[in-house]
Amino acid sequence: MPEIVFGSRVRKSPYFNATMAAGVTAFTIYNQMYMPVSYGDPLGEYERVKTGVSMWDVAAERQVEIIGPDATVVAQLVSARRLTDLKVGRARYAPMCDYRGCLINDPIALRLAEDRWWLSIADSDMLHWVAGVAGTGGYDVDVFEPDVSPLAIQGPRADDVCRILFGDELVDSLGFFHHRAVELDGVPLVICRSGWSRQGGVELFLTDGSLGQALWDRVAEAGAPFGIAPGTPHQMERIENGLLSYGSDTDADTDPIEAGLGDFINLDGDFDFIGKQALIVRHADPATRRRLVNVTLDGEMPAPQHPWEARIDGTSVGEVRTATYSPKLDRNVGLALVPVACAEAGTQIDVDADGATLTATVMDVPFGTSL
Amino acid sequence: MPEIVFGSRVRKSPYFNATMAAGVTAFTIYNQMYMPVSYGDPLGEYERVKTGVSMWDVAAERQVEIIGPDATVVAQLVSARRLTDLKVGRARYAPMCDYRGCLINDPIALRLAEDRWWLSIADSDMLHWVAGVAGTGGYDVDVFEPDVSPLAIQGPRADDVCRILFGDELVDSLGFFHHRAVELDGVPLVICRSGWSRQGGVELFLTDGSLGQALWDRVAEAGAPFGIAPGTPHQMERIENGLLSYGSDTDADTDPIEAGLGDFINLDGDFDFIGKQALIVRHADPATRRRLVNVTLDGEMPAPQHPWEARIDGTSVGEVRTATYSPKLDRNVGLALVPVACAEAGTQIDVDADGATLTATVMDVPFGTSL
Repeated sequence: MPEIVFGSRVRKSPYFNATMAAGVTAFTIYNQMYMPVSYGDPLGEYERVKTGVSMWDVAAERQVEIIGPDATVVAQLVSARRLTDLKVGRARYAPMCDYRGCLINDPIALRLAEDRWWLSIADSDMLHWVAGVAGTGGYDVDVFEPDVSPLAIQGPRADDVCRILFGDELVDSLGFFHHRAVELDGVPLVICRSGWSRQGGVELFLTDGSLGQALWDRVAEAGAPFGIAPGTPHQMERIENGLLSYGSDTDADTDPIEAGLGDFINLDGDFDFIGKQALIVRHADPATRRRLVNVTLDGEMPAPQHPWEARIDGTSVGEVRTATYSPKLDRNVGLALVPVACAEAGTQIDVDADGATLTATVMDVPFGTSL
Repeated sequence: MPEIVFGSRVRKSPYFNATMAAGVTAFTIYNQMYMPVSYGDPLGEYERVKTGVSMWDVAAERQVEIIGPDATVVAQLVSARRLTDLKVGRARYAPMCDYRGCLINDPIALRLAEDRWWLSIADSDMLHWVAGVAGTGGYDVDVFEPDVSPLAIQGPRADDVCRILFGDELVDSLGFFHHRAVELDGVPLVICRSGWSRQGGVELFLTDGSLGQALWDRVAEAGAPFGIAPGTPHQMERIENGLLSYGSDTDADTDPIEAGLGDFINLDGDFDFIGKQALIVRHADPATRRRLVNVTLDGEMPAPQHPWEARIDGTSVGEVRTATYSPKLDRNVGLALVPVACAEAGTQIDVDADGATLTATVMDVPFGTSL
């Protein structure tokens, strides 16, 4: 496999040196930052996050900060889900659409103060999008990327680690998607009960990038009794549990309803957001649209490096966007983006996987639910 | 060095398989697309582009297409340089600013028709920026990323290759930054006399991504008599010749004047663009601003993977953003972003290069000129 090159155009995370010392074997680039994607033992890392506790450098999950008198107006304008009623100290998963109604990111929005928000983004440059909308619309806000770098602690033993780090009172009072600013031995951070797995845990939003090594070491030390080790967001775990990977599962023309996020947008709300009208038009006849579905994959599956064309009776019906071996089901599974007419459970689809022919079968578990 | 991982979140170029077959050894990710950055022989690749001819997969230089009745209005609004007088069939280097007056990209703008533009972008997501500005401003345009993937032919023998591919008439009539739509054995493309080197050549903007291998093979075949081989945009060549690398040489707060692009923006024009007023305010007192300067670097230089802090008398004065060995000068050189007061030729700066201490000396050649 070719190397990744390190240069100053792409940023290093505050945890970069720590991850290198811990033996990271592969990176991707995400929001113009190097992000670890493997420490060389996919099944071991899967087991650890499912049964123990894992620590992840997810600093590449950058924040778009919106602050000022119009901050909530702008945050709502760019979010397809109601945010105006979100309390300070809470977070909400809030997909973003462009003017065509297509999904352009699916961040978690954190309300830090009445007039201060973070959008904790997936891999697309929402800083420019929000700044372009806010500037052109004449809104009274500042939009910028703050010095904030999440470190995730994920897995069923995450709370044990957090009790040592932050004490029982904090852990017991921190509900799902609640967040709070704390200091850990002089390291400032916002702790949020969130993270890109379904195994529980928190994200520590470090707010001083010069202290990455200190935070990493502190977490590693507190987690040692519970067998903590470095890991990364995990393809097997997230596909088994219906977590969307924006840009991986979706293409440039996917809208949130197609992506299975219909429950996380408010088309019928009494407020406007960018893309709302376009979405209503797109789904005036739902039968004409697509759906992201779970599929099983039978046949000799090569390593999935890119979407594969899906066909029924020789006619293209979209793509298997991504695929993986599922330890839980002990078989290969994937996510296919296909017309609604082909989305029914049991539908069989031919997949051209780089020369190998696979048979995909639509599962009866809708995307978003655990397999 | 860690591997790069291949997955469907990041796109493969239409030339991806060809570059793998040709032995690419390292990739980066640029505009959410894998981009080759080395075939394992930096000095050989440097020599080839300086004295012969090289072919580069630069499909990651994506296009933002702006089309419709307000296309020229929008193209001008997002560009700090006059575009309204650009003829169809011509291109112009046109830096882009945000509302703070900071550089957010430095594309070449190609005018394809009166009301149709491509912004051929560096590594930041200008599709969302332009779409956000156009949509919020209510302009009558479509903004999208077309199926366009540049393949560059660069070097003093590039014209010889193009004569075989396209004939003498086209080569002789194609002036610098001129472009023309042509078909090459059924492969549709726009040829433009441009490219990210100072060694001459063209970029072939392939307009059907399914034909990447065909175009690659055709160029390789025509170039064989001239010793063509795969290469990549080259750090040594571009620093020796004052070509800006957006995001590498600049930080999030760099404006185009600081970046040495003052000649490529129109602050005194009779038209408005985003960031113009902010830029005027920023440079009301130029002494308070920074400047990107060429420096020589003395001392044992480690591989430059990220910006290094620059100091004078122990006080931080900015950063050496990037550095390289220069074969032409047979010494190490770099680009430093420092206060104007420290930008005078001969100024000596201490550089903390990952533990090694280097001495940077500001050169008398301003950035933008060949060393």
